[in-house]
Amino acid sequence: MTKPLSIAVAGLGTVGGGLLKLLSENAEIVAARAGRPVVVGAVSARDRTRDRGVPLSTLRWYDDPVALAADPGTDVVVELIGGSDGPARALVEAALKAGKPVVTANKALLAVHGAAIAELAEARNLPLAFEAAVAGGIPAIKALREGLAGNRIRRVAGILNGTCNYILTVMREHKREFAEVLAEAQKLGYAEADPSFDIDGVDAAHKLAILAALAFGRPVDFGAVHVEGIREVSALDIALAEELGYRIKLLGLAARTEAGISARVHPCMVPTGAPIARVDGVFNAVVAEGDFVGRVMLEGRGAGAGPTASAVVADLIDLARGRQTPVWGAAAGLLDGAPAVPMERHVGAYYLRLMVLDRPGVIADVTGILRDHAISLEAMLQRGRAPGEAVPVVLTTHDCEEAQMRAALGRIAALDSVLEKPALIRIEPL
Amino acid sequence: MTKPLSIAVAGLGTVGGGLLKLLSENAEIVAARAGRPVVVGAVSARDRTRDRGVPLSTLRWYDDPVALAADPGTDVVVELIGGSDGPARALVEAALKAGKPVVTANKALLAVHGAAIAELAEARNLPLAFEAAVAGGIPAIKALREGLAGNRIRRVAGILNGTCNYILTVMREHKREFAEVLAEAQKLGYAEADPSFDIDGVDAAHKLAILAALAFGRPVDFGAVHVEGIREVSALDIALAEELGYRIKLLGLAARTEAGISARVHPCMVPTGAPIARVDGVFNAVVAEGDFVGRVMLEGRGAGAGPTASAVVADLIDLARGRQTPVWGAAAGLLDGAPAVPMERHVGAYYLRLMVLDRPGVIADVTGILRDHAISLEAMLQRGRAPGEAVPVVLTTHDCEEAQMRAALGRIAALDSVLEKPALIRIEPL
Repeated sequence: MTKPLSIAVAGLGTVGGGLLKLLSENAEIVAARAGRPVVVGAVSARDRTRDRGVPLSTLRWYDDPVALAADPGTDVVVELIGGSDGPARALVEAALKAGKPVVTANKALLAVHGAAIAELAEARNLPLAFEAAVAGGIPAIKALREGLAGNRIRRVAGILNGTCNYILTVMREHKREFAEVLAEAQKLGYAEADPSFDIDGVDAAHKLAILAALAFGRPVDFGAVHVEGIREVSALDIALAEELGYRIKLLGLAARTEAGISARVHPCMVPTGAPIARVDGVFNAVVAEGDFVGRVMLEGRGAGAGPTASAVVADLIDLARGRQTPVWGAAAGLLDGAPAVPMERHVGAYYLRLMVLDRPGVIADVTGILRDHAISLEAMLQRGRAPGEAVPVVLTTHDCEEAQMRAALGRIAALDSVLEKPALIRIEPL
Repeated sequence: MTKPLSIAVAGLGTVGGGLLKLLSENAEIVAARAGRPVVVGAVSARDRTRDRGVPLSTLRWYDDPVALAADPGTDVVVELIGGSDGPARALVEAALKAGKPVVTANKALLAVHGAAIAELAEARNLPLAFEAAVAGGIPAIKALREGLAGNRIRRVAGILNGTCNYILTVMREHKREFAEVLAEAQKLGYAEADPSFDIDGVDAAHKLAILAALAFGRPVDFGAVHVEGIREVSALDIALAEELGYRIKLLGLAARTEAGISARVHPCMVPTGAPIARVDGVFNAVVAEGDFVGRVMLEGRGAGAGPTASAVVADLIDLARGRQTPVWGAAAGLLDGAPAVPMERHVGAYYLRLMVLDRPGVIADVTGILRDHAISLEAMLQRGRAPGEAVPVVLTTHDCEEAQMRAALGRIAALDSVLEKPALIRIEPL
């Protein structure tokens, strides 16, 4: 058997610990599939003393993770620190500049600085692998970039944040409100103490930006992603969605149209019968639609030590075997230059839920505004009667343009008889 | 850009035609992702005159497909003839012996002769790629062999035959009998004139044998697969399954236990809530369970010109990029030698449906026999009463051994009061 692949691991938190465990427990399998042993030679972590279930005393320890880039015995640098800047970015750049291939699970880094980092890697013909950055253990990046490489991808969509999917699932199953379920998820460790990265859609948007780059063969463009989170999703809207035959999911969606590439993350109503509607709890899913393959869906655990380690090791085995792919699927000069389509140009159907005073003329006012903006109604639902009091009114529309809907919504929200901020959720016929 | 990859295509039926169309329509995308153009240089097909939508007159034509192996301008031979023997096998062997990499969509060939053909390829260090052989456009082979390569796979399962899944779906949705739905599927082109290959489970078993080899890192062993088809599934059992919270699917299932590797294809009852239960119509799905990644499911179109061509081109792009993987995931000397576990040793739960004379003592006789074989009942369901006439009785069991169940079943079938051959369907807690 040939020389081992010696790796340096920066960051020994949950994922780093999982990686060490996998490489130790499955050493024989990994060596057989990689064609040679994959061994950890050097590490950098804040705490040297914590028990990680694997002996680490014989390894080369570095206090400064960036110093791993210069470790002379290292073949590949594995970056598991996280964060779009700081030591993670410094280490990845230093490693590439030192001629070392990089494996990273860092979606924030790739989404924000991926275009520049990919150029750095390609200029040196060095592999930059990041299967673990999107959808955890699901081999979504390999599927998009290699498995479906013969296709012109029309659309890629996914449930990309397990925390949000868990919260929405519990809200639906137990008819509970967001704040309450979030607090419980934090207690259970399914949500961070500062949850905004997850629940405001930023994490999903990082991943969607990467998927869109791979699907459409273009450098990652996080700035072009429209982002909304799930804070404003209410138990009432989830229940009304069920009545209408929909489930509410936080989706990332990117599509290629004649106008260019659209990319957005926001709560969506998807038909209850759609495969992605039934992906519940902490599971993630990625759907890709190609011109020859049709629709392919991949589903699995999107986070956690085991799934993420599985993805990192898949990258390491590719490297050990010499299997290499350009970062965005094609050489830099052959990447796609289609423009980004702004959210205002989005065309789709909408769900609009208003709390209105139950008195004559309110519906006429609302539907009159929609007519002024050329928005045509698909259905209207008014629940119960309570003269002079607040009742929910639900309107669903046919396809219309986001800019028109926003203009109409501004006027509707300003009506005296509309008592709360209207709830607006886009309907996706996935 | 470097020299084109020149391929020779044997067989221009549905899949071959789809391949030519993809390589023509998506030539630019394929070239970008492959790092060089992928062009068809030579072909062999029975009919030279049929319009395939792509100009073929400038290609080198061969009447004998085996002669493609010796075509001097060919870099890769693509075998799309089909069949486990005959010209397909002769061509693949000739190509490898001539030092040419091979891409094939031929599950029968790989299942039956794959062990020997893989040895031929490995001895010459030649790629043998077959993404299209299993689950059509779903990149299941790449996912198992590369994407999940760091895992010890415990189980792989799938809906691997679209014809069977279509028939079972229509039977359930329209409460119709097998023979009638089959005849209609044949008219619609979803089933072959001679459907036995599909409906008797042979095609699914070919694919399962390949998946099992990849999942467990061992040479393919079609002979060890237990195979049953769907001819005996009745509308009554599908309806009773629904009542019990199950759907009937033809599954391929392979698992690693302490005793070795089991591999079987047969109708299964899966819980209605299981993701695989909702994969309907002509869609295929593959589920893999790894020790680190947990459960991953891939779903998509398992057949047809477009999806199959997509898979063949993914293989060609891998070859063009120089990405190579040992046939069964590891070098021959490192493959797993666990023994095959015979079906008699299978342990699981069973659904048993009898047509019995509605008279006292029948249930006592049946349950007495089950007790004799140490089979414990989970539930019993008797529908309606018709003294002296035939009524269905359903029994579900806790886990027991197949050999015991078969012995009990033989005795139950021989009872005077049991009027028809009992229906036996295994319950899978997927």
